[in-house]
Amino acid sequence: MLSVSGCTILSNKRTRGFSHERELARKLWARGFAVMRAPASGSKAKRLVYPDIVAIYHGKILIFEVKTASNLRDIYIPGHQVEKLLEFTRRAGGEAYIAIKITGTGEWYFVSISKLVKTSSGNYKLPKSALGEALRLPALVNLVKGVKDLLEYIDK
Amino acid sequence: MLSVSGCTILSNKRTRGFSHERELARKLWARGFAVMRAPASGSKAKRLVYPDIVAIYHGKILIFEVKTASNLRDIYIPGHQVEKLLEFTRRAGGEAYIAIKITGTGEWYFVSISKLVKTSSGNYKLPKSALGEALRLPALVNLVKGVKDLLEYIDK
Repeated sequence: MLSVSGCTILSNKRTRGFSHERELARKLWARGFAVMRAPASGSKAKRLVYPDIVAIYHGKILIFEVKTASNLRDIYIPGHQVEKLLEFTRRAGGEAYIAIKITGTGEWYFVSISKLVKTSSGNYKLPKSALGEALRLPALVNLVKGVKDLLEYIDK
Repeated sequence: MLSVSGCTILSNKRTRGFSHERELARKLWARGFAVMRAPASGSKAKRLVYPDIVAIYHGKILIFEVKTASNLRDIYIPGHQVEKLLEFTRRAGGEAYIAIKITGTGEWYFVSISKLVKTSSGNYKLPKSALGEALRLPALVNLVKGVKDLLEYIDK
């Protein structure tokens, strides 16, 4: 019965979060990345430290924690989530990002974890100003693949 | 009801396989790797291509498909499992291995996918002879970390 009730909770509570993670995983896969999503949280896997998504392109490693927001605003992230992201990144190398999906427009924003600000309570804040300077998906992909933005070829 | 029955099947059929994957993930984590296990198979995640485990150490990427065997013998692997491992590795870079747990002794063997032999039916065979030359976990870890084997320091 435990496994059944556990699964029911999973279906109800986590499906929406998973669907955003899956969407980002698919987008990265479609752009040529090898992509791995984390196993369901709440499982025994929690004894290890997992980010939501790891995406790799020819040895270049991106590590993501996925968040959603209804608009561009300050976003707060629990301290333990950021710590696990930092620990995973220390071990793996590569670059870690907070991936934010704006649910109204469906657009994705990517902010380096270096932009996070620790709050007095030990949690982290991603300021709205950092979101304003965030990478969008094509820019992130180009950054990794080393492809120049088309704009760079336009005479100024 | 679908999700509940789906979960019941998962618990019964896949628990043992998951526990071996979890064991290897823990061993690699304990040796300093960033480790990610795949989400439960059978889920929607199957639309993407996942190996069982990805482990990364300071930019060095290892990709694993996990198998168990009761003793050192020829091991056969379905063609589609090897193809997904190859596709993931082509995208990610790094080295792909078949990780075999011998259930009697509990020992792990690691064989490069380059040792796989395609059979006439389109599946793959890992010959017993390749298992005889397989890496054990300490050797695999040393290979990645660039630590020399102790034997190399002994006068010959």
